[in-house]
Amino acid sequence: MKELENYIIKYGKVVSDDILKVDNFLNHKIDIKLIKKMAECWYDEFKNKGVNKILTIEASGIALATMVADRFNVNLVFAKKSKTTNMSNNLYQAKVFSFTHQVENVISVDKKYLNKEDKILIIDDFLANGEAVSGLINLAKQAEAEVVGVGIAIEKGFQKAGDKLRSEGINLKSLAIIDRMDPLNSEIIFRK
Amino acid sequence: MKELENYIIKYGKVVSDDILKVDNFLNHKIDIKLIKKMAECWYDEFKNKGVNKILTIEASGIALATMVADRFNVNLVFAKKSKTTNMSNNLYQAKVFSFTHQVENVISVDKKYLNKEDKILIIDDFLANGEAVSGLINLAKQAEAEVVGVGIAIEKGFQKAGDKLRSEGINLKSLAIIDRMDPLNSEIIFRK
Repeated sequence: MKELENYIIKYGKVVSDDILKVDNFLNHKIDIKLIKKMAECWYDEFKNKGVNKILTIEASGIALATMVADRFNVNLVFAKKSKTTNMSNNLYQAKVFSFTHQVENVISVDKKYLNKEDKILIIDDFLANGEAVSGLINLAKQAEAEVVGVGIAIEKGFQKAGDKLRSEGINLKSLAIIDRMDPLNSEIIFRK
Repeated sequence: MKELENYIIKYGKVVSDDILKVDNFLNHKIDIKLIKKMAECWYDEFKNKGVNKILTIEASGIALATMVADRFNVNLVFAKKSKTTNMSNNLYQAKVFSFTHQVENVISVDKKYLNKEDKILIIDDFLANGEAVSGLINLAKQAEAEVVGVGIAIEKGFQKAGDKLRSEGINLKSLAIIDRMDPLNSEIIFRK
């Protein structure tokens, strides 16, 4: 999505060769016109797939997922994060390692809110090592729901999780894929 | 808002005389049609106030705030929660005590994203003791921004924070105000 790439170039900050800050339009302050257009892109991609639920993870995926849910006119569910394993029979749970915070989180969704009739579109802001998305796919599988697609705003192509998901047959639509970042000259190379 | 009251009666669960679970339509699974109508109510209330930014707090306020931001066609900012005081010169910060979790959180917003030209509408899902909303008002005041209103989905009227905010001159629009809950017979008394 050219407009997202332009936002990344104009407003993103390359902190290191693998860290990009986009908190001025995507995950702290949120540009509503931009995310509405992003939702439209995902709608175009997945509108014929029978999507009946949007699944994301707190916190920064929620705004995107809400716009997408509105566009599809379906409900959304956000998985909750916790640092403790509070095992309950009523939760689907998956372990997700956060490289950013070097901590293992347990993500969970109440079993009432995912079920085998669901055709799920997973939405998140970043795809790097793929831990969060894999955790969400895991939750959907536990519910025997179908994951019809994954919509990501910014994929860090150099971290290969996206390529791995694609090779596994996941219908992954990343709106911007970054193949390389150079913090010295703030250069960002997008995948064609 | 009659429809929200109906949802609360139909889908809410009175856990105790002060705890109401609404995670099946408001803060875990989210009913997109309902929150869109809620956004419309707040728009009707505040559309002539010059709102140019929506402010909320992660995580459960974000979906509501996103729908409101879309309706007003303005950007949103969500305050971040952390349990540690990571003092930085670039953040507005406020302490917020969570009665639910019996822990003091520090909420923060990057100083770049609130400023004195802002006319802010604060949005959150619940108003109980008022700690979160007071913290958000505090952040806005630090930025010398104007809080033109506060939109709350469910106000626990019996906890008096709403009445206190109104007495301080805050333009508070709660879509449902609960004056009493009885877990024995699942009775919920709304304020007229």
